Amino acid sequence: MPDPADLARQFAEMLGPRGWIAGEDAAPWQRDWLDRHGVPPLGVARPGSTAEVTAVVRACRAAGVAVVPQGGNTGLCAAAVAARPGAVILSLARMAGIGPPDPASGSIEVGAGVVLAALHQALDGTGLMFPLHLGAEGSAQIGGLIGTNAGGSHAFRFGMMGDLLLGVEVVLPDGSIWNGLRAVQKDNAGYQLRRLFAGAEGTLGIVTRAVLGLFPAPRQRATAFLALPDLAAAVALGTRLRAEAGEFLTGLEFFSDLGLGLALKHLPGLSYPLATRGGAYVLVEVASGSDLVPLDDILAGVLEWGMGQGLVLDGALAASEAQRAGFWRLREEQPEGQRLDGPQLKHDIAVPPGRIAEFVARAAPLCQGLLPGVRINPFGHLGDGNIHYNLSPPEGAGGFAGTDAALGLELARLATAMGGSFAAEHGLGRTKIALADALRPPEERRLMRALKQALDPDGVLNPGVLVEG
Amino acid sequence: MPDPADLARQFAEMLGPRGWIAGEDAAPWQRDWLDRHGVPPLGVARPGSTAEVTAVVRACRAAGVAVVPQGGNTGLCAAAVAARPGAVILSLARMAGIGPPDPASGSIEVGAGVVLAALHQALDGTGLMFPLHLGAEGSAQIGGLIGTNAGGSHAFRFGMMGDLLLGVEVVLPDGSIWNGLRAVQKDNAGYQLRRLFAGAEGTLGIVTRAVLGLFPAPRQRATAFLALPDLAAAVALGTRLRAEAGEFLTGLEFFSDLGLGLALKHLPGLSYPLATRGGAYVLVEVASGSDLVPLDDILAGVLEWGMGQGLVLDGALAASEAQRAGFWRLREEQPEGQRLDGPQLKHDIAVPPGRIAEFVARAAPLCQGLLPGVRINPFGHLGDGNIHYNLSPPEGAGGFAGTDAALGLELARLATAMGGSFAAEHGLGRTKIALADALRPPEERRLMRALKQALDPDGVLNPGVLVEG
Repeated sequence: MPDPADLARQFAEMLGPRGWIAGEDAAPWQRDWLDRHGVPPLGVARPGSTAEVTAVVRACRAAGVAVVPQGGNTGLCAAAVAARPGAVILSLARMAGIGPPDPASGSIEVGAGVVLAALHQALDGTGLMFPLHLGAEGSAQIGGLIGTNAGGSHAFRFGMMGDLLLGVEVVLPDGSIWNGLRAVQKDNAGYQLRRLFAGAEGTLGIVTRAVLGLFPAPRQRATAFLALPDLAAAVALGTRLRAEAGEFLTGLEFFSDLGLGLALKHLPGLSYPLATRGGAYVLVEVASGSDLVPLDDILAGVLEWGMGQGLVLDGALAASEAQRAGFWRLREEQPEGQRLDGPQLKHDIAVPPGRIAEFVARAAPLCQGLLPGVRINPFGHLGDGNIHYNLSPPEGAGGFAGTDAALGLELARLATAMGGSFAAEHGLGRTKIALADALRPPEERRLMRALKQALDPDGVLNPGVLVEG
Repeated sequence: MPDPADLARQFAEMLGPRGWIAGEDAAPWQRDWLDRHGVPPLGVARPGSTAEVTAVVRACRAAGVAVVPQGGNTGLCAAAVAARPGAVILSLARMAGIGPPDPASGSIEVGAGVVLAALHQALDGTGLMFPLHLGAEGSAQIGGLIGTNAGGSHAFRFGMMGDLLLGVEVVLPDGSIWNGLRAVQKDNAGYQLRRLFAGAEGTLGIVTRAVLGLFPAPRQRATAFLALPDLAAAVALGTRLRAEAGEFLTGLEFFSDLGLGLALKHLPGLSYPLATRGGAYVLVEVASGSDLVPLDDILAGVLEWGMGQGLVLDGALAASEAQRAGFWRLREEQPEGQRLDGPQLKHDIAVPPGRIAEFVARAAPLCQGLLPGVRINPFGHLGDGNIHYNLSPPEGAGGFAGTDAALGLELARLATAMGGSFAAEHGLGRTKIALADALRPPEERRLMRALKQALDPDGVLNPGVLVEG
């Protein structure tokens, strides 16, 4: 087995100064976004081509060195940093080509290192859009979004990252390249491999390029911000919106009054647009490709119905792009408001959308029982039942008094019992493997271990992520 | 290893007369729908519960007997019948329970034996719909639809079967049960197993129950039947329809003048609704959940534009449910019209939707070169590029003069070169493995064999399907 120093020299020579970064210079890649995980790697490989990715994977495999793929490093489950010293972090950031969009077929080929916001920008004015949106889109890269099967705010309407993936090129653990860069939705020529690599968190292969599905960009849009008495009202309103305006819905987000308060307290630029506060807030966005659709009327009709039913206390329709951006910022700054308030625990729950309020109602006493006074701040995606059930310590307390794991387990157990998931859109990474082992049927975990063993028998790719290393 | 006769006695006792069918009585399950494949099985097991499925799989595994799962037996690639004598055909037809639909969450739990049309019927009047539609829906069962990752006419808008699958229960090759019956879209707790079993053609596990996603049923609908000069016009019109009416499109189908002629000739009940014939025909259907949408105006606007551009020669909007059914029947009888005309070759191609006309234009000389006078009848799904590129022999000829395999290979090669698939929605089954081995990268086929080996090392489930047995 070669000396790690030899491997580093080999990479420095092969990849050049832009392609191999070691020592202190590797610090920016070392820690995860929450700054909780990550030890110094042997170095950071930044290949500029699929052939270079292959060479890196082959050399690491031969040397018995772990390869840890990293996209924008915005993940919350520590899947993109090393747990043990001496690994090679593989950044695809230099493979950031964006092909021409194909309007007649609705697709585009991109490199794994393309930042999501850059893709959105490249599509501006083309009449096409890529309908994946999430808070981290200014940093998150296509490869990481595929690896985590990212969700976000538009998933309930357009699907998750795996649903938007038509084709993919993957460097496999033995360094060979699978070219699955097809550009069709329907491809049943065998197992749905592209769907397997989506969400595999870099443990089965390194995604290097992808063909993504595009949608026509809408020509009109309407956005409303609503105050509601409680989450149960939000769920009822969401059901009505899906039935009457489902084909137009592009956003259906919720957050709590606690979360609103934290955001307003810590982010001075924010303002609250209504006269009345509520027990829950909903952001609704609808859009249409046709100028003939009376979008405002359709939205207003559902909202009037909601007011008549007592489901909506107050609301405003965005009258300008600036106002719309302000509504969205209220929602998108929920994590930041809570982060600035001090320590927090993040939980990425999904339950059937009709049971969101029930989950929150049942979870509260569990949490209060473990840590009286804990501040509960659920927010997220009304359309798909994805609740970011985040906690802050009791007012004045500096932490969670050692209840972190117990809180996480209770919430995960409740979500599971309700037909949901404790790892909705963030994945397992390194931090949620124990939950999966505890709460998922043994057959499921056995299947996952069998897949890992079959495709990466030597454990070269991202060992310790998704399944035990 | 037990005597097969012992196994048959054991099943007869365990499953009872409704649950075990052997000898001549098993004939209805023996042959595939095209009556080209299938040898006599040991018998047909018709378990009534997941526990009975487990018992059948365990006993077959112990006896070294192959298990061949069969749904409605409407597949076109011989995946649901036995290639070697002595297999046990496993029919899930008795596991046909339909749970109550959940309108607030948009989901429903069903048994694998539920016939698709029965599910549609059960949802009638509930305000919900399951948006999978295909010609065989009167026979096709949920389990088979999952196994083949079925597509159909609504897939371009709502997704394929795997996209509509929230949760699944699977009996694994060792007889253990994986309960993945969750009811959420977002579940990133590890590899996307549900997506792996969708399209696995029963080679990795037996799907016994599923949780499916439902959508609000529309409140209004408009259907148009159009004659166009050629397929290129159809593609251009399709692009425009997606851009201006994409959120309403529920059907976007095409067929050829040859196909229309065959259907009108062989199916006396059919009538042609327009004054003018064309080079290609398109059926457009739009629907909305809102009564406020001027659906007719939106559709008419695009069609008027199409007429102005010379893309549409003639057209009619359905003025009644009977007329609408007549339009759809013209499309749906395309396979039957050709079947009644004599021998045929079916090819299930997908290309990027913008390249449909190009594919058809490039394929014609290839086919004519191999068999001069061969009659080409492409029809299918304009929205996703899925072309059922079916052939009839030259006028007066009784067959394809031994060019069958060469025709299939040329067409598959062209689809592959154009970024498409030669097995779009029908799967590989037994009949297209050779094509996959010839045309897909070796890494892809190696990955598939590795998955099969990992999950079904003894080759108990559907051996010889999807990968070589």
